[in-house]
Amino acid sequence: MATLEQMQAAVHAYVDAFDKGDPALVVELFAVDAVVEDPVGGKPLRGKSEFAPFFRGTVGSGARLTLDGPLRVGADYVAFAFHVLLEWEGTPMRIDVIDVFRFDDLGKVRHMQAFWGPFNFNPASQEQAHA
Amino acid sequence: MATLEQMQAAVHAYVDAFDKGDPALVVELFAVDAVVEDPVGGKPLRGKSEFAPFFRGTVGSGARLTLDGPLRVGADYVAFAFHVLLEWEGTPMRIDVIDVFRFDDLGKVRHMQAFWGPFNFNPASQEQAHA
Repeated sequence: MATLEQMQAAVHAYVDAFDKGDPALVVELFAVDAVVEDPVGGKPLRGKSEFAPFFRGTVGSGARLTLDGPLRVGADYVAFAFHVLLEWEGTPMRIDVIDVFRFDDLGKVRHMQAFWGPFNFNPASQEQAHA
Repeated sequence: MATLEQMQAAVHAYVDAFDKGDPALVVELFAVDAVVEDPVGGKPLRGKSEFAPFFRGTVGSGARLTLDGPLRVGADYVAFAFHVLLEWEGTPMRIDVIDVFRFDDLGKVRHMQAFWGPFNFNPASQEQAHA
């Protein structure tokens, strides 16, 4: 069973990896055979050969993540609300997302679900864009 | 396919039903064969005969729900962060929760997941308790 500390640390490491612009720091949080749904409703990415290129793209986009509210922590999961700030064709944008990370016994993410849709993709306020 | 409006309305109706103290208003949001996991990690409740008594208990507890942040809406789901205020053995308590509602084609909830754990169950501040 993953520990509370492992699960909390993984969420903060995920956020920090975007700040550092280092996709390898994201990939190492995941089990090699993890399933990534981002967003839920799209084709799930199965295994490192599929999710590693995806994270190179998302981290490489320059996106910055900010947690909104406390982590919701169960026996083998963390669910958390956050928003993403990024530039999209020159315009500062904000995406409001809820992620669920489910963990294996080694403390690696075995399943990630990111809940968001077009409705959650909006121009960022000036204040947000320059924060 | 459930419409955006149906899905958003269901979430607000869920919150309102607690305010009104009427569990029947919750139950009618769900498909008869819906699966309810509250919290995720406990035994799933399968079908109205199992989830209706559960909601009679939760609504009957006097709990009040407040949404925290925007609804995250996909093709057949809404994920949302909220907190619950309730009295627990005379003490005002707060639970921070993330719910995911997945909808059937008629706009009924076919699967509910509530993500929270003991870590999210805390004494409410005085301000919260009397708001």
